Amino acid sequence: MLQARCKADVLKTLIDATSTLVDEVKIHVTPEGLSLKAVDPAHVAMVELTLRAAAFMEYKADEMEMGVDLEKFKEVLKLATGDDEVEMSFDPGNHRLVMKIGNVTRRMSLVDTSGMSDPKVPKLDLPAHITLMPSELERGIRASEAIADHVILMADKDTFELLAEGDTDQVHLRLDRSMIPELKVSEKVKSLFSLDYFANMVKAAKGSPGIHLNLGNDYPVKIEFDLAGGNGHVTYLLAPRIES
Amino acid sequence: MLQARCKADVLKTLIDATSTLVDEVKIHVTPEGLSLKAVDPAHVAMVELTLRAAAFMEYKADEMEMGVDLEKFKEVLKLATGDDEVEMSFDPGNHRLVMKIGNVTRRMSLVDTSGMSDPKVPKLDLPAHITLMPSELERGIRASEAIADHVILMADKDTFELLAEGDTDQVHLRLDRSMIPELKVSEKVKSLFSLDYFANMVKAAKGSPGIHLNLGNDYPVKIEFDLAGGNGHVTYLLAPRIES
Amino acid sequence: MLQARCKADVLKTLIDATSTLVDEVKIHVTPEGLSLKAVDPAHVAMVELTLRAAAFMEYKADEMEMGVDLEKFKEVLKLATGDDEVEMSFDPGNHRLVMKIGNVTRRMSLVDTSGMSDPKVPKLDLPAHITLMPSELERGIRASEAIADHVILMADKDTFELLAEGDTDQVHLRLDRSMIPELKVSEKVKSLFSLDYFANMVKAAKGSPGIHLNLGNDYPVKIEFDLAGGNGHVTYLLAPRIES
Repeated sequence: MLQARCKADVLKTLIDATSTLVDEVKIHVTPEGLSLKAVDPAHVAMVELTLRAAAFMEYKADEMEMGVDLEKFKEVLKLATGDDEVEMSFDPGNHRLVMKIGNVTRRMSLVDTSGMSDPKVPKLDLPAHITLMPSELERGIRASEAIADHVILMADKDTFELLAEGDTDQVHLRLDRSMIPELKVSEKVKSLFSLDYFANMVKAAKGSPGIHLNLGNDYPVKIEFDLAGGNGHVTYLLAPRIES
Repeated sequence: MLQARCKADVLKTLIDATSTLVDEVKIHVTPEGLSLKAVDPAHVAMVELTLRAAAFMEYKADEMEMGVDLEKFKEVLKLATGDDEVEMSFDPGNHRLVMKIGNVTRRMSLVDTSGMSDPKVPKLDLPAHITLMPSELERGIRASEAIADHVILMADKDTFELLAEGDTDQVHLRLDRSMIPELKVSEKVKSLFSLDYFANMVKAAKGSPGIHLNLGNDYPVKIEFDLAGGNGHVTYLLAPRIES
Repeated sequence: MLQARCKADVLKTLIDATSTLVDEVKIHVTPEGLSLKAVDPAHVAMVELTLRAAAFMEYKADEMEMGVDLEKFKEVLKLATGDDEVEMSFDPGNHRLVMKIGNVTRRMSLVDTSGMSDPKVPKLDLPAHITLMPSELERGIRASEAIADHVILMADKDTFELLAEGDTDQVHLRLDRSMIPELKVSEKVKSLFSLDYFANMVKAAKGSPGIHLNLGNDYPVKIEFDLAGGNGHVTYLLAPRIES
């Protein structure tokens, strides 16, 4: 059973954060809220997302699983502006998710979840913790996209840096301690990442006040941010590329 | 003879309402105003439009006919913002329509009307009369476009409904008496229509305060709305599809 | 040596004005400012542009030349909104132009200037001087683009006219003395130009308060306008087409 009501934006951010990695996802529904875990088809990145009942204006649910086609979900949410209310319920009779936006009711078929695995999220203990404004990272990313497919993320106890190297050109974002809300680095770190994946993850964090990076040396980066005014949370893991 | 001046928006709505069905149209010019009738090439839909002299800031005309290329007309009107004034006159010497927008004069060749018929508009006495906000219909249409090519319009004495059925998904817009300015239904009605045609007709009504639907059972729908602050009127007829 | 700082818009207008004619350009740097001259590959048009040191908030330079890829430059400037500050310096060590926007530093390779000629700008003494609002010309140009590839520019002591002739249609922009800030015409003039070139030149003048045209009879048109609040200047020469 599921009966929930929220601002359209809450569901839009959930979809946006997930659809950068997968087309379909299994959402775990519990009385406490929604949650999901997914690995992208290339096994380069992973997302873990929770949305607590408090993110909804109304929320009642029993434990269940829903397989959702994210593209279709996104398209339905386009019927609403961010501030419109959306009602969401599950129709067990014909296994449909029922979305109500204004006077329009949309019944959506669900996706079979039997083939979807439950990825295990590895525990990482990484030496660098950095919290940034997403907008600072975005400018560095946009500049990098013009010249490279990869970015280097680096941090030491005084600075965070993003570096992209093209054949002849270079992009360098350098933020010192005074420009960064949080910078806790126990040893100097440096890892290389696919720019495309990293860019999409930072883009998903657009509306949030801060984006948290957890970095190591040639290690995955852990990217975290809050959704829905603190009532939801996204964690990405992105595998490093090894510099040639 | 024709000498007329109006806000660009008045002519833009005339063009938009007509160009959803035909590329060229014969406009009847009389001292009382402009009017046109046209049937789409597939003979599925018909438009009848009148624009009274009062819709213009200045209007003088003798009886005449003009064959107009709607795409070209639309393109010329793009030179004006909605509030700009447009002067329109007929140059009988070389059979040109002369449009003046600001200091730019555009002379347009007209289209030969000899092959254009004058369609007869059938009189229909349909049992259901519904007046709606165009925006309510628009959301239902947008939702339907994602899953189907056809929509069912239904009404009984208490509700108006729009229904679209995809292979696995369904859209349902349901408005009860309290949400509808006018609902006069003498018997329960239900007809199926091409979504594409219906969507374009509702889109043409965008700026108008109300859209009037006149429905029967497996019968054409008559769609009416006002233009130019009540100084113009559009009537569409759309043939039903028979459910298979 | 070059060390300069300015609003992004100043460099954007420089790039926009030049990139309508060439993909790469040699910029002459002197203590007084920047300047460039370029001829388009078809040898139909020429641009001469100066940007004085006063256009910059900070400007220090020795005499030098820089070969710039305009597309790349434009793309870098997209990282800044018009009001953002851009720092520009030359790194002689590895022959890079260094742009700084916010906390992002972009190092750009320069283009080899050895094959770039220094075009000589012919001195023209043309009988008609007209200063116009760019917006007036723009509407005439947009109307013309729908029907023709060429425009006729004409002036006599009382009027300026732009005329485009299609197969069946005609566009005519007519401005009389009262609508034109400056109209000094010692003899009646008329020349035909490629609409595409002319449109791009007028578009580059968009933000400027006035565009100056200097016309003759089947002669090139000289088009001039100011940049950067009067601290820069653009001169275009556009060769006439001979009417067939």
